[in-house]
Amino acid sequence: MPKTFEYELSATDGKARTGVIKTPRGDIATPAFMPVGTAATVKAMLPESVAATGADILLGNTYHLMLRPTAERIARLGGLHKFMNWEKPILTDSGGFQVMSLAGLRKLTERGVTFKSHIDGSKHEITPERSMEIQALLGSDIVMCFDECTPFPASETDSLASMQMSMRWAARSRAAFGDRPGHALFGIQQGSIFPEQRAESAESLREIGFDGYAVGGLAVGEGQEMMFDVLDYAPDMLPNDRPRYLMGVGKPDDIVGAVARGIDMMDCVLPSRSGRTGQVFTRRGVVNIKNARHGDDPRPLDEDCTCPACSSYSRAYLHHVFRANEMISGMLLTWHNLHYYQELMAGMRAAIGAGIFVQFQADFHAKRAQGDIEPF
Amino acid sequence: MPKTFEYELSATDGKARTGVIKTPRGDIATPAFMPVGTAATVKAMLPESVAATGADILLGNTYHLMLRPTAERIARLGGLHKFMNWEKPILTDSGGFQVMSLAGLRKLTERGVTFKSHIDGSKHEITPERSMEIQALLGSDIVMCFDECTPFPASETDSLASMQMSMRWAARSRAAFGDRPGHALFGIQQGSIFPEQRAESAESLREIGFDGYAVGGLAVGEGQEMMFDVLDYAPDMLPNDRPRYLMGVGKPDDIVGAVARGIDMMDCVLPSRSGRTGQVFTRRGVVNIKNARHGDDPRPLDEDCTCPACSSYSRAYLHHVFRANEMISGMLLTWHNLHYYQELMAGMRAAIGAGIFVQFQADFHAKRAQGDIEPF
Repeated sequence: MPKTFEYELSATDGKARTGVIKTPRGDIATPAFMPVGTAATVKAMLPESVAATGADILLGNTYHLMLRPTAERIARLGGLHKFMNWEKPILTDSGGFQVMSLAGLRKLTERGVTFKSHIDGSKHEITPERSMEIQALLGSDIVMCFDECTPFPASETDSLASMQMSMRWAARSRAAFGDRPGHALFGIQQGSIFPEQRAESAESLREIGFDGYAVGGLAVGEGQEMMFDVLDYAPDMLPNDRPRYLMGVGKPDDIVGAVARGIDMMDCVLPSRSGRTGQVFTRRGVVNIKNARHGDDPRPLDEDCTCPACSSYSRAYLHHVFRANEMISGMLLTWHNLHYYQELMAGMRAAIGAGIFVQFQADFHAKRAQGDIEPF
Repeated sequence: MPKTFEYELSATDGKARTGVIKTPRGDIATPAFMPVGTAATVKAMLPESVAATGADILLGNTYHLMLRPTAERIARLGGLHKFMNWEKPILTDSGGFQVMSLAGLRKLTERGVTFKSHIDGSKHEITPERSMEIQALLGSDIVMCFDECTPFPASETDSLASMQMSMRWAARSRAAFGDRPGHALFGIQQGSIFPEQRAESAESLREIGFDGYAVGGLAVGEGQEMMFDVLDYAPDMLPNDRPRYLMGVGKPDDIVGAVARGIDMMDCVLPSRSGRTGQVFTRRGVVNIKNARHGDDPRPLDEDCTCPACSSYSRAYLHHVFRANEMISGMLLTWHNLHYYQELMAGMRAAIGAGIFVQFQADFHAKRAQGDIEPF
């Protein structure tokens, strides 16, 4: 395996791209979906099961890990990969997104953010420099710049000020990251729904120079239509020869639409969180396993799925263990959801490689329309 | 595999016995520990993981399953084995123990017990005949007689009346069970701590005739010393050529002591429940993973253990995920505890076969005494 971080574009189909990110810890086939392992675990899953779903990379949350068990403790124990028994690549966020959402408990200045822990009320600070330090202590393979995720909606003036501060923080992040062969640093484009600001942000990031580029500030309440409007132009402003990462997305149709617009990487808690609340994603739509109509149903969740939940259990069983609040419910439904997401990604990679991504999208939407979709 | 239920005694060492119970669904090596799968799941475990620990048989709870999802629903779905994805043998209790513990919510007569569901308050009845019907609907391989688990302490008079009613219920259970080749019915000895009553109960059960015999009415608060006092004589009163099952036991030293007194089968929620509450059984004693002293400890729970929790995770990680209330904590610690229990059983089977069970017991106690035992 290479000692360096590389991105190889294999094929394009319209704006959709497929390729591979090569890292010392293994290859990441793109478009890639990254399950979220907030507190050094993808909830309800053993890491070997996460790998079995087809995930090449996990996301870890800097905010949660810096508070508990702390980045310093994880470093003493040999880093996050060893700590959580996941030897493949890990991307860590910068901590910014979670900290910014601590309304009333945090204070933002040009220097960075001070905040109180949601666990014990202790005071902490994250600056671009501290975020780089924490992510290095964790041993992250893909490090994210510290930025402000501009809230939605934001006025043009507020968005501009927020974006420009994030660009100054991006330069500080780049300087603090230093030279770490085999580890990548990604910049994050901001600019809300304003094309000129998105262009200015992209230009700032290009000038600094990063190993990959994220589209930030989306999936924050603007809705799919407005998100797609931004994705119609924002990814095109980022370098073609680097991976493009859409943060915090999303539902299956969000993901398909994002890939159609040139996105290579995504992450979201949705498949794992929904697994624990009994909402199941299938190629024929959403199944709410708690609904009484599943109680006597001998069919699997999805007859075309090969995951353990679908191979070995009826809807009736999954309904029963969900109602009985048994842990196996979250375990099996999370596994199914992650398996489905990874199958969706693999299907898109194959379709893009074969030049039939338009057909793939049509089939995807047709199957969902014919199925037993329940309200999500 | 045989169409019938058979017990073969392979070797004895003192009173300790090793052998095999042959059933159409597979062999059960004895002494056997049965993990408890109350609501059609061993909590926090996938069934293939339970099998990987070495378990040959599970226990299911009639009381819980009759209320939710109901025995009739499980029967419609093809039986408990298919429902919960466990193809090996299942023993079901009679429902009596849980119903009797519903103080204030149940009424006991010669006919049986009426009670209100702890889930929704609905009224139900279990009689010996209904218990046999439910266990047949579930498809249980080893069916337990419906009895009253005599409370402890009980006066000699109360114990006698309770035991004699259980013996009348044993006869009704036997009659209702009928002839079901490949399925076994076990009788349950009662008599509290009174040797004459234990003898009378054993004689009654022998006259009726069962495929196996349980020692009931123990592990109900009498303490290990008094339990061992009863086990010094009660198992000897039961037929030598049939398996002897001690219900609801226990801690590792209870189990070793019971095997030394001629017990072949046991079940207990302790290893799985303790796994969820952070109490870990190891050959060097109990580890309470929540204790802060484990927070920086890179060692595994038990350096001699080959389970996934010990092979791939530090005490520091297990401490972290326990404190963070992550599901993987219960998953890994339950797996470890069940693995340890099954290793203990395998060790005893080998020692009895080799005629060195006295040495095995001495080593077991010496290792526990030298270790980092924490209060349980």
